[in-house]
Amino acid sequence: MTIARLPTPMALALAEAEAAAAVGEVPVGAVVVGPDGAVLARDRNRIEERRDPTAHAEILAIRAAAALMGTPRLVGCDLYVTLEPCPMCAFAASLARLRRVYYGAEDPKGGGVDHGPRIFASSSCHHRPEVYGGIGERKAAVLLRGFFKERR
Amino acid sequence: MTIARLPTPMALALAEAEAAAAVGEVPVGAVVVGPDGAVLARDRNRIEERRDPTAHAEILAIRAAAALMGTPRLVGCDLYVTLEPCPMCAFAASLARLRRVYYGAEDPKGGGVDHGPRIFASSSCHHRPEVYGGIGERKAAVLLRGFFKERR
Repeated sequence: MTIARLPTPMALALAEAEAAAAVGEVPVGAVVVGPDGAVLARDRNRIEERRDPTAHAEILAIRAAAALMGTPRLVGCDLYVTLEPCPMCAFAASLARLRRVYYGAEDPKGGGVDHGPRIFASSSCHHRPEVYGGIGERKAAVLLRGFFKERR
Repeated sequence: MTIARLPTPMALALAEAEAAAAVGEVPVGAVVVGPDGAVLARDRNRIEERRDPTAHAEILAIRAAAALMGTPRLVGCDLYVTLEPCPMCAFAASLARLRRVYYGAEDPKGGGVDHGPRIFASSSCHHRPEVYGGIGERKAAVLLRGFFKERR
C-alpha cells in the first residue's frame, strides 16, 4: 500500500512557474499557505498577460489570499515562491505580515531578500518574515535557465 | 481677466490623500502623468477598504495607468505622490520604467527612496527614475501628522 502524498506548496509553486513559461512569462510561481497548512492562493507571473508591471506571482498570490481571508494582514501565513523575491515583493510580504518566506532559486541580479537591498534587514522594514532559501532550488533554476536560453 | 489654472498633479495627489484620510486610510495620494502631461491615473491608499496590503496609492495609480496605456512599461511617464514611496512602491516605479518620481513629505521611518534600502541606488534596481523630493511637502506632512494625532 502506498500513502497518497499531497503536492507540497513548493511543488504547486513550481507547477505555476511552468504554466507561466508556457505562455511566455518569466517562470515564477507563488503559493500562500494558511496557519493550518491549507493553500489559500496560488498564482504566477502575469505581467504581459495583464499589462501590469506589479503582476508578479507573489503580489497576485498575496492579494488573493488577503481577499479570501478578508484582511490585509496575513498573520501566521507563509509564502512559497520559486525565485528569491524582488524588492517589491519582499516588502509586500512584510506589509502582509507573512510569517515565513520559502524561496527556490537565488536571484543575485534582481533579488531583494538575500541580495541587493536586503529588504528585511533594512530600517524601513517593520515586520520581518523568517526566510528559508534554496527550497526546490534546482528545479526552479532549470526552469528559469531554459526560459532565458530560448529567448536569446 | 484671470487665466484659469489647472490643478497641478501634486495638488491632485494631495486631494486624493485628503479623501483617504476622510475614510480612515493613511493619507497618501498618487497621480501618474503621461509624457505629454496628461493625467493617466490618480488614486489613494485603499488598504483597509480593499483588504489588500499592496493597495498603496502608487501601486493602484501605476496599475491603472498601465491598464489605460495597454502596456506594463510606462516609458516617459511620471509619478507624483504625497509621501516618499515605501520600498515596494519604489521598486514598482522602477519595474514600470517611470521617468520621474516627484514626492512630497520625506518618510525617514518607512521610505524606500531616500531612506532605508534606497531602492534606486541598489544593485537589484535596473531602471532608475529621476527623483524630486519635497514637492508640496508642507501640506502632505500636515495631513499625515493630523491623521496620526487623531488616532493616538
